[in-house]
Order: sequence, then C-alpha cells, then structure tokens
Amino acid sequence: MEKKELIVPRTLKGFRDYLPEMMISRERIMETARTVYRSYGFAPIDTPALEYFEILSGKGSDETDKQLYHFEDHGGRKVGLRFDLTVPFARFAAQHIPRLGTPFKRYHIAPVWRGENTQTGRYREFVQCDFDTIGTTSIVSDIETALVIHDLLDAIGFENQYTIRINNRLILSGLLEKLGLSEKTVPVLRALDKLAKAGREKVAQEMAETANATPDQTNALLNFAELKGTNNEVLPSLSRILTSNPQGEEGIEKLNTILHEIHSAGISEESVVIDVSIARGLDYYTGTIYETFLRELPTIGSVCSGGRYDNLAGLYTKLPLPGIGASLGLDRLLAAMEELGRIEKVSTPARVFLPFFAEERLHDYLEIAAKLRKSGVTVEFYPEAKKLGTQLKYADKRGFVFVLVIGSEEFDRGICQLKNMKTGETEEILLTDLVSRLMTLPAKT
Amino acid sequence: MEKKELIVPRTLKGFRDYLPEMMISRERIMETARTVYRSYGFAPIDTPALEYFEILSGKGSDETDKQLYHFEDHGGRKVGLRFDLTVPFARFAAQHIPRLGTPFKRYHIAPVWRGENTQTGRYREFVQCDFDTIGTTSIVSDIETALVIHDLLDAIGFENQYTIRINNRLILSGLLEKLGLSEKTVPVLRALDKLAKAGREKVAQEMAETANATPDQTNALLNFAELKGTNNEVLPSLSRILTSNPQGEEGIEKLNTILHEIHSAGISEESVVIDVSIARGLDYYTGTIYETFLRELPTIGSVCSGGRYDNLAGLYTKLPLPGIGASLGLDRLLAAMEELGRIEKVSTPARVFLPFFAEERLHDYLEIAAKLRKSGVTVEFYPEAKKLGTQLKYADKRGFVFVLVIGSEEFDRGICQLKNMKTGETEEILLTDLVSRLMTLPAKT
Repeated sequence: MEKKELIVPRTLKGFRDYLPEMMISRERIMETARTVYRSYGFAPIDTPALEYFEILSGKGSDETDKQLYHFEDHGGRKVGLRFDLTVPFARFAAQHIPRLGTPFKRYHIAPVWRGENTQTGRYREFVQCDFDTIGTTSIVSDIETALVIHDLLDAIGFENQYTIRINNRLILSGLLEKLGLSEKTVPVLRALDKLAKAGREKVAQEMAETANATPDQTNALLNFAELKGTNNEVLPSLSRILTSNPQGEEGIEKLNTILHEIHSAGISEESVVIDVSIARGLDYYTGTIYETFLRELPTIGSVCSGGRYDNLAGLYTKLPLPGIGASLGLDRLLAAMEELGRIEKVSTPARVFLPFFAEERLHDYLEIAAKLRKSGVTVEFYPEAKKLGTQLKYADKRGFVFVLVIGSEEFDRGICQLKNMKTGETEEILLTDLVSRLMTLPAKT
Repeated sequence: MEKKELIVPRTLKGFRDYLPEMMISRERIMETARTVYRSYGFAPIDTPALEYFEILSGKGSDETDKQLYHFEDHGGRKVGLRFDLTVPFARFAAQHIPRLGTPFKRYHIAPVWRGENTQTGRYREFVQCDFDTIGTTSIVSDIETALVIHDLLDAIGFENQYTIRINNRLILSGLLEKLGLSEKTVPVLRALDKLAKAGREKVAQEMAETANATPDQTNALLNFAELKGTNNEVLPSLSRILTSNPQGEEGIEKLNTILHEIHSAGISEESVVIDVSIARGLDYYTGTIYETFLRELPTIGSVCSGGRYDNLAGLYTKLPLPGIGASLGLDRLLAAMEELGRIEKVSTPARVFLPFFAEERLHDYLEIAAKLRKSGVTVEFYPEAKKLGTQLKYADKRGFVFVLVIGSEEFDRGICQLKNMKTGETEEILLTDLVSRLMTLPAKT
C-alpha cells in the first residue's frame, strides 16, 4: 500500500490549521456566542456547506461570484461552497418559514469560503457567527441587536474595550434626498465608504466623477460623514441638517430610541456611539446599521457588524421577510486577540496532569482519574510509565499548572503531592480529601 | 436588482437543513462530546475543509476516491473536500507533531463530505466527532478509549442502553496464521464483514471463491466469528482456539487487560463485550477495535467506532506515529434519537417567554429581561405589542413552558404572573422576587 515517495504535508494557500492553543480560544468564543444568542431566544440552525450554484449566485455581486468556489458534482449539478451565511439563510427562510412562523430568531455558526486574494490576516475559509430576527420591523429587534453585540463582546472579555458604532440608512437617504442626489446613492456610498482610508480629497474627486456631484453637494456629504462627537453632540447637528426631511427625521428618531433604551439598560454612553459614516453594503441594509471596533486595535476592522434589511429572501419567495441581524467575525476577532497577546499559552483543556510512574498501580491511577472526572475535575493521565522528569516536561509544554504526583509510597500512605508548576510549590493531600481539594482550585488564569 | 422569476429554494440531493428542534439536540451532543473529550485532556484542533487532492486521495481506496468532491480552484490547484477527519489529521500530524511533541491527544468535530449514493438515512454531508491519542502504543490509551466512549454515551443520555463491542486484530491474525491463511487476510476479512447481513452460507461461498478457503478453514473461521456469550465465556474459548499462537495470545491478553481495568472502574460487564466478528477497516486497524451499538436500535449501525493503528501518517512523513482513537457518528446518532422519539419538541433554547403587551412599558420589559439574563435565566422577549393570545400561541409553538405575563397593572403593582403552559397553572410573583424564583425553575424536561 505504502508509496515510495512521501506526499508533502501542507495546507492550501489561504487556508490554515488551528492548533490546540488557538483552537481552545476559538471554541471558547464560539461557546460564548452560543450562550449569549440563546439567552435572547435565538435558536440554532444549520445548512449545507454546498448549495446549488444558482442559489448562491442569485444575490451576489460580480465580486462574490468571482470568489465563489464552484464546480460540477458527481451528478452534473452546478454547486458551490457558501460564501456567507446570509444567502443560505434566505434560501432556508423561503423554504421553512411558512412552517416555522414568524418572528423567527436564529443563530448560525459555521465556516464560509471565499477564493479571494490572500492578504495578511485574510483567509479563504473563516467562521461566521450570525444571529438574525426576521418577520418583524419592530424597533425592539434593533435595540436587542445592540444588546446582543454588547453582551457578546463583554462575555468574550472585552468589557469597556470596544465601541459599537451605529447608524441608520434613512439618515443618509434623507440627506441625499435633500441634496437631490437620491438617484446617485450607490456611487455616493461607494465613495463615502473609502473616507477613512482615502481621505476627503480622493472621495470628493470620486463623487464628482461617478455621481456628478457639485462641490457644494460633495462638501455637504463630507461634512456630514465627518460629524464627530458624543451622541448628545451629534444628534442635534443631525436634526439641524435634516430638518423637515421626513426620512431623515425618522432615522434620527430611531437612533434616538435605540440609544435611549440601551443606555437605560445600563450600557455606557461610550459603548454605543452614532457614526453616520458607516454604510455597510450598498443596497442590502435599509435601516439601523452596526459595526464594532476594538479600541486597542481599530485597524483590524469591525469584529461584529450587521443591520436591518427590508426583505431577506426576495429572490426565492414572495413572502416579505424584513429582519435585522449581525455577525461576529470569529476569526478576525481571534487574529486581533493574538495580536493583542490575549491568547493564553495553554494547549490542554484539562486542569490537572496525572503522571504515571508506579507501573504496578495502573488500576489506582485510573480509579483516581475517574473519580476526579466524575466530580467535574478534568484530568489528563500520562499513558506511559516514563521518568517523572520527562512527564513533567510534557506537562509544562502543554501548559498544565497543576500536577498530581503519586508514587507507590504515596499510594501506600494514602496521600499525594499537588505540585503547582508556576510557583513550584508542593502540597501534601490525603487521597480521601483529593476531590474536595481539587474542586476548589483557582479558576484558570 | 430583483429578478422577475423566483429561484426555487431547495437543498442539494443528499443534503439537508437542520431546523431548531433538531439543531438544539445536535448542539447539545456536540457540547457533550467536547466536555467528555476535554475531561481526558484531548485538545481541540481544526483543519481546512478543502485540501490538496493528492493529500486526500493518497490513502483512499478507489471507493473513497470516487466519493470525493474534487475540482480545480481559482488558482488551478486540484482540491477536494475532506471525506473524513483521519486523513486531514494524518497530514496535520506530519506537519505539526515535530513541534507539538507526543503523546498528542486531539479531538476534532467537523463536517465531512462524501458524494455517495443516497440511501435512507445516508447523507452526503455529516459531522464526525473524532478523538485520538498518537505517539504511544501503551495499553493505557486503549483502556482510555473505551472509557471515553462509555462516558460519552452515558453523558448523551444512553446510560445502560448501549453495548461497546471490542476486538483485537491480533486475534484474527493469529487464527489466520494458525489456519495458514495469513496471505488471504483481505478477502477473508471482506467476506467476514458481511456475516451479519449475508449469513454463513454466502460468506463461506465468498471465502471459497476469493480466498481459496477449504471447508475446514471456512468452518473454523465462521465458528470463530460466531463465538457468542459473556466475556467470561468467550475468553476461555478464544484461548483454546489460539493456544500456542503468540500473536493470538497477545491479542487475548490485551483484551483481558482492557476489560479488567474498565470493569474495575465501575463499568458494567454488559457495557463492554468481546465481539470477534468486528473487523473495521481492512488494513488500517492493527490492534484493539471498538464499535458501539444502541440496544434499542442496533440496526442503525455503530454510533461510535475506532481502533488502534500502527502508523497514522506514513504517506506524509517518516516519523512513526502509532495511535488509537474513535469517532462518534453525530448525525447517525441523531437519526437514531429521532427514530426512538428522543428529540424533544422544543425549538427555542430560552427558558422563559416574556410577552410584550403594555407598549408604553417597553423600558420596564427590557430591564426585567436584562436582569434575568444577568442571573443566567434565558428569556425571549416578543418584539411586537400584539394581542396576548397571539403571543401565547407563538410561545406554545416554540415549546416554551414558562411565560411571564406582565401588563401595565402588574407593573404598577410590582408583580407578575408566571404561567406554566403545560399545567395551565399561574403563580403571582413579586417583581422583586422574580430572579430568585426563576432561578429555581425545574430543569428542562
């Protein structure tokens, strides 16, 4: 069976393995997301990685079509790997909502694939953690979306270290209406989207070229997009700019309600701020828009984004499905945490390491390990009766803090030594007290 | 943007969506698997869904090659979707073990894809939950593998309702050696594998045809494969059959040790039984082999299988990597649970439903919901102030048992009504006592 030449073990360009150290953090974040989503009543769903090509390409821009992994399957069907979780959810909703009913709140945590050019930190496979509420236009869902993003970032460990930027598409639409540029929404938004990266000059130039905007119009748009300050400063300016424009006023009123309700729910002023420059998606979002930035590392981009849309699944059903949702960019957040040195150097999920060095006492070791696990203490037992030094080196490499040393003599005396690898301290414990002692170990640092 | 004709919303043949009811159970099983694997010190890893075709096809049989989803990516590379988690793990190990060191214990929970003919209950995408220990030949890992399978099935809720069947490939090899059929291992095993389905006659016929087996040899093999009884009955028979064959005796000795250790760890005689007829994999497994059957539904096949192998990654590295592991067939187990009526008719992960019907008290509702969530009580708040009846119907459809009814009058009086949808009973609670009362709700039924 064995071939003579070895096959080079490697991953595809733009793909990567997750080793235990990173994967432990990655699983922890996914678990946190599930816990937070569930706490609001979002229910899990799953859809296939492969879909009919026509389903995936239906909504996509040329850009996404180009990035789509697609091919013919064994039955000659044109199929593709999903490039986001929104399109599969739209297809899912068109198929199942008549039976499931609305409002329908779902979360979906799964990988997506995009054959895009790989830059630093950009991969062709990444996990998205989406949550959406569909079948309602109620502002309650807009408020809840902000609360979920807040709870999520807090629970992941970024309390007071992020800013949720919110906007409402009606505000910009109102301004464009006032300026007589409603027909030019797409090129104007496309230009404005580049403001942070390209600067005023270049954006003004693009607007003149692609939207025929006059210098007055361009100025008004840029000044508007650069409105800065606290919510209490920005809101009156917005009201002034958009006075007597019903669309714009509705947008402001909605932002106002959201801010009012979430602030009264105990969320700080600085955590959720109005940013009229965020636009997200040229024609998809129609109401509230959310982006989330880590204050320590804003350059990595938004780690949790979303917004309100008028109709999720218009390509697949006549059933109107307004909704709102957002998506945690798990792998982007993880990259940020790595850059910020927030990934713990631990590659074992177990709490206690149990070396095996009195070979004839295998049975006793197994009994102790089983007893600990039954009490919820996770424990790794070394499979070979090697020298203690070798086993301690292994434990250290894996990042274990607590090692439970028991030899023949200890078994005979009914004791064991609990060694702390960080402090070097050793504590003698009666085997009969072991479970209760280990259950009080300090939380993982 | 909108096209005139709707795209038919549908999944590909052999693929399916998971709706909340099923997905809640599916996530619960995956969480259970993670918890059990971690309790033994198995660490999580992840690998890409797409790999180089040469990596995937390297080990595969013609059968797997035929089932492989493969295509050319944007860069003209030949790529494929993994069809199991073992081949990616072999590639991963060849790449990373020099740095990670051994023993290395990993688990990997992820979907795999096989373009096989769809039969009832067979899908082209399914999730595997693998755990393996590599870099050691110690019997401790064989014992641990049985313990993990046992803990896993218990934790999922099948306590005393499954049988782990174990075997050791050395036993069969020993017998073949004694019978002078060592060279015919592959055709003999292939025939024996069909014993349960095809019966003695047909298997004997196949053995005669493909392995040139004499009637005496065939009889010996079939009698051996049909050895039945308790472990205490089977072991002496095996010893008799294999007496003075070192290979066979080593296999028996190993089975004996495993059974002895796990039984002393409190696992019942009936939970782990010797079954010399299981062979699993014609040339991959070399030592202990495991299969797990649900007593109520054995026909669905093994829900957790695995075994010991001599060398994981010989195609990709010269580093010898012996190991042992098993895989929980999540979607097969889920199908069994559905057939057994063990999937709860609940499609919300939240514990309490909070209707919204005093519109002017939005703020108070949000405050109560936030307070409950902070205390760990999951709660879904209805987003629209519709009639209470409509909202209760919604709650019932989602499977909520507890509904917290609060109207304007209740808010004024500082009380609320806790309604049990199953019993119809209603209990009045002071809002100040709400959190402590809800934290004592009975566990989900």
